Parts: sequence; C-alpha cells; structure tokens
Amino acid sequence: MIVLFTDFGLDGPYTGQMKAVLHRIVPGVPVIDLFADAPTGNPKASAYLLAAYAGWFPEGTIFLCVVDPGVGGERPALIIEADERWYVGPGNGLFELVERRARTARRFDIAFTPERLSASFHGRDLFAPVAAMLARGDEPPGRPRSDDADRRPDWPDDLGEVVYVDHYGNALTGLRAAALAPDARLAAAGRVLERARTFGDRPPGTAFWYENSNGLVEIAVNQGRADRTLGLAIGSAIAIVS
Amino acid sequence: MIVLFTDFGLDGPYTGQMKAVLHRIVPGVPVIDLFADAPTGNPKASAYLLAAYAGWFPEGTIFLCVVDPGVGGERPALIIEADERWYVGPGNGLFELVERRARTARRFDIAFTPERLSASFHGRDLFAPVAAMLARGDEPPGRPRSDDADRRPDWPDDLGEVVYVDHYGNALTGLRAAALAPDARLAAAGRVLERARTFGDRPPGTAFWYENSNGLVEIAVNQGRADRTLGLAIGSAIAIVS
Amino acid sequence: MIVLFTDFGLDGPYTGQMKAVLHRIVPGVPVIDLFADAPTGNPKASAYLLAAYAGWFPEGTIFLCVVDPGVGGERPALIIEADERWYVGPGNGLFELVERRARTARRFDIAFTPERLSASFHGRDLFAPVAAMLARGDEPPGRPRSDDADRRPDWPDDLGEVVYVDHYGNALTGLRAAALAPDARLAAAGRVLERARTFGDRPPGTAFWYENSNGLVEIAVNQGRADRTLGLAIGSAIAIVS
Repeated sequence: MIVLFTDFGLDGPYTGQMKAVLHRIVPGVPVIDLFADAPTGNPKASAYLLAAYAGWFPEGTIFLCVVDPGVGGERPALIIEADERWYVGPGNGLFELVERRARTARRFDIAFTPERLSASFHGRDLFAPVAAMLARGDEPPGRPRSDDADRRPDWPDDLGEVVYVDHYGNALTGLRAAALAPDARLAAAGRVLERARTFGDRPPGTAFWYENSNGLVEIAVNQGRADRTLGLAIGSAIAIVS
Repeated sequence: MIVLFTDFGLDGPYTGQMKAVLHRIVPGVPVIDLFADAPTGNPKASAYLLAAYAGWFPEGTIFLCVVDPGVGGERPALIIEADERWYVGPGNGLFELVERRARTARRFDIAFTPERLSASFHGRDLFAPVAAMLARGDEPPGRPRSDDADRRPDWPDDLGEVVYVDHYGNALTGLRAAALAPDARLAAAGRVLERARTFGDRPPGTAFWYENSNGLVEIAVNQGRADRTLGLAIGSAIAIVS
Repeated sequence: MIVLFTDFGLDGPYTGQMKAVLHRIVPGVPVIDLFADAPTGNPKASAYLLAAYAGWFPEGTIFLCVVDPGVGGERPALIIEADERWYVGPGNGLFELVERRARTARRFDIAFTPERLSASFHGRDLFAPVAAMLARGDEPPGRPRSDDADRRPDWPDDLGEVVYVDHYGNALTGLRAAALAPDARLAAAGRVLERARTFGDRPPGTAFWYENSNGLVEIAVNQGRADRTLGLAIGSAIAIVS
C-alpha cells in the first residue's frame, strides 16, 4: 500500500499525475490519500502530523510525502526506513519525528535519475517513481546516507502548536496525549481547557481537549467549531498549564 | 461495491483511514466516494440526500454512512438492509427515509467488537470493518433489532428545505420531484420559482426549479449561482405554492 | 486508463456517480482524477488547460471531459481521437486546442442512446458509458463527423489569460512557455514579470513566471500566493511585453 501525504491541495492536477505514475509502474498496488492538505509549505507542522498518523498503518506501508517548498533547490531527496515502514520525500525535516520516534531507522539519499525531471514537481518525477520501485519490491534506489545535516535536533519531541484544523473546525496539535498527565489542562488562545473523553461529554458550545483517534491532543467544541470559537489556526500556541 | 457517504469533509485523514481499513479486509472491492460533504453533523438533511441517491446504485451495494455527531455516546450502531442494499452507520435518523421508502427492510444492531475502538472515530474502527464483512459476503455481524426508538416518525416524507448546495451553487432540496404536480411552483427566499427542464430553457440569471438527475427538486440559476442569487443555504425553507 | 477532467467540483455526488458507471462497465480499468475543478462553466479556459496536461499521459489514455454549461441543449456530443488519445465530452470548444495541436485527429458524433438520459447529467448517463466502451476496446460508438460548426477557429493558439489558480495561489496561463522567447517578460496586473527556473531562484515575496511541469507559463511568488499578491483570477489578462 502506498499512502499519499502532501500539501498539493485537494484541487488541481498534482495528485492525479502522481497516481498516474504509480499506476504505470505498479498497476495493482492500492494508493490511499491520507492528507492532500498537510500544512502548506510547512515541513515542521507536517512532520508532527505525519508521525502521529503513520504508525496506525501496517508495516510495509510506503509513504509518499511531498511538502516541499524548496523543490528545485539544494535540499536532499530521501528514502527513510523506520520501524518497517518506508518514507520517500524531501529532506527538509518532514521525517524528523518519524525517525526520532522509531526503534530502528535507515536513511538513504535517492540515487535514481528520472528521464525527465521538472524543476517544480519532484513529487511526480522523482518521489513517485521511487515509491513505486519500493512497492514493487526493489532494493531501495539510494545510497546509505551518513550526513545528518537534514535532521532537526532543535525541534521538540512534542510541539505545543496547532498543526492542522479539520473540516469540523477541530484543532489538532503536535502534542501526543500520552505525553501529558491524564488530567492535564491546556492553555490556548487565553483560555484554559480541560480534558474530555469525547464530544458528548461536554455541553454544546464548550471547548475542551481530548485524545483523538490517532493519539494527538485535539481541541474541539461540542456542536461547534474550535477554530472559530477560540480563534485557532495552524501555528497557534498551545501550552500545558498543569 | 462499497459507497461512502460521510460528512468528513474532502480534507483531512478520515476518508483515507477508512479506505485503508476496507482495503485491508476486502482488497479487491471497489470503493466509491459519493458524498464526503454531507450536511455536517446533520443526520436529518443527510437522510433525505442519502435516500435520493442510494436508489440509483445497483442492488448489493453497501453504503458506509457516517454523519455521526453523537459518536462515542449512546446512539445505536446499525446495519440496515433495504431493498437489497446494505447500510452501515449510526442510528440517529440517517437511514429513516431509506427505510421508510423501501419495500422490504431488515434492521440489526451491530454485534461486533473491534480490537480497538476510539471514542471519536467509529467510522474507521467499527462501521468500516462491518461494511467490509458485508462486502466479503459474511452474514451481517449483528442482532436483529426490534427497538424502534431510533426511528423518526415525525420527519415528513419529503422535506421542504435545502439539504445540499453543490459546487455550481445549485440548491438540492429534500423534496422529490415525483411528489409534486408537474407544474408546481415553489416559494424560496421570498421568490416564486417555476419549473424548467434544464438550464438552457431559462434566460441567463433566471432562477427556476427542475428535477435533478436523481429525482430531487433542485433550485438553480442559468449561468449563475442559486445560493448567492437567492440567499439559500442548508436548512432554507422551500414551500410548494401551487 | 481513464482520466477525468471536469468542473464538477471536489464536492458533491457527480464524480462518484461517474466512477460507479465506469466501474460497472469496465471494472478493472484505473480511473485517475486529473481536474475536478476545471474552470466552472468555461470551456475556453478549460480547453487550454486540457491541451497542456493531456499530452503528458501515454497514448491510449481516454479522457472523460465534462465542462458542459449547455447540457441538455443543442451542443453536439463528441468523441475525438487525437494523437492516439481519446476524448469524450461536449462539443463546445473543450477539445479545440487538443485537436489543433494534434498531428492526426478523427472526430465522431456520439451515436449511443442510453437507457435513461437525464437532462442535466450527461457526464454520468452519456459520456461515462462511451468512455467505458472505448476503454473496453469497442469501436468508437459514433458516426464520423464532418460538420466543423463546433470548432473555434477564432480562439488563439496560446491564450494570454489566467486559466487556473492552484492550491498554492500560482496562476496557470493559457500560454505555452515554448511559444515565448526564453527571456520574455510578461505584464500582469500592471506589473512586469521576469522568468525564473523555480521558486528558490527568486527572493521570498517576489513575483515571477516560470515554465511549469506541464509546459505552461505559470505566475508565482516565492513563499507567497501570486493570486493575492497580484490580484489574479481566471480570466485575468497576461501580455507578453518583450
């Protein structure tokens, strides 16, 4: 299974062209759209989101990840194997948390030169073919990488920021619920939020936090939108107050 | 064929995770996205929309339906068989019109306990596995349900409200065209609307109603947007004036 | 492979119903979403977009194209074969540039009468079954067309207008980069834009144009949105100044 994690947006021709490449090389392999709207041009927020969702997928899954504001520039092009899952994409921090949380990880510089490489769409021309080769069972088309210049040791283990706002207006954070005390309270947008198990446990209109279905701290409002009620957006600070 | 009918939104990780579950259990079965933007948290409007579109699909189709504002609370979890089609989802009225319009229907309480059930994402953890079991040909993993407390006898057979606004700004209503006189006129937003066969039959900018391709009364403006021209949104009242 | 090019929007039931039709007739054939948000009701802008993207796909690809504001009216329903690729859709200019740029082209009036033809959704009822028949290897279900009344000889070979704005705010134009001098400058929204190779070659916030990954002139802003910075939208004029 190949899982797509990109900031391409839901619209436009980008995801379709990548899928056409995958289909041409590995016609039978299922392709799942996980996020097409990862934080735009924001590898840091995306890294916390990816790490929270990737572990839910079975071993052997190949993640084709394109949040790549530096496309066409100097950033490395990587293949990462972490806990038996594969990740293909730009070396801009996008895999930092996946690697840091993994029991085992191997890193490769992509060593594959496509026939035609556009300056602005490596997702289609470089990363998709490499993901397809891995799905086909090829040896990783790369050279073991020892250079750690692409790592981000200064990024925290958990990020006290909103990293995604979903369709319901719920604000996903870069904090794992398991890293907090069960009765922890959070401060967001000048408000203190307590924990709930799920939406119906709070009166309509009340803001709270809960552990979402992938283990992240998520801020929500029962029968309302947390983003509008609290004024939250990607990057809004979230603090642990107790 | 498994058909998805949800209010997950087009964005975010929800549909992708459900599809990953379906793929794991029934890899070969096609999955069709019908609505990912059913009226958010609104099982009533969604019920009229679902009933209008489900009948177009062939017998044997399995509808995986998640408009579930009460997830994690007390609402039942159901399997409905109606006119040889299967429906899996929450017992909050979402299947009311499908059942009421069916010649034959059977109802089951889901009797399947997943290994892990999150409090907020039963679509992934409960309903998707059940839909996959049905697609695999299993006996419905449920107990026949005699309790009708989840039914909504007070909801009308046709709903004089906007239940969906599409990409073109057309306003779909909960009224079936076949339930109206052929020359019926409608009142919406203080305007009286006459019937047309299709867009080109009315001058540009003119509002009208017509029978859409799934039998619903739909309000439209030739070369314009009915939602903006008339100020319509989900829930706007539509009355039959003659 | 069947490729979808429509203005249905990302939301709503239209794409799903078309895919259900395709699946029923040719279950094994992959279906790729290229554009679901081609310029709404605008066959002219769509024609330049389609022509730029179609050539990237391999020979034998079948394009199911629905930008069809005149649905239910008099416009012809066409099958076009151009350079070994197939196009099915309305005869409203949508295929004008594909045909004009092709080395070889054949044109057919669709001669297939579906069991049920709605007045407003020929994409599902007419064009999808025809595309599926072609994918199955049938002879084109049409009559050779000699009437050229649907052609648009007055449309230019390259269109100096924005034809699409993507998720990043980049403005795609109807101009092919290969038709311009390598150092051409463009005028857009009262600004003169120079060429760059890719985003990182310009300072953050600077507007420029570049050849996108499908050969079109695209206007962009490094780490910004060209649409907002320059006030560009579909239809905005783009002039070549040198």
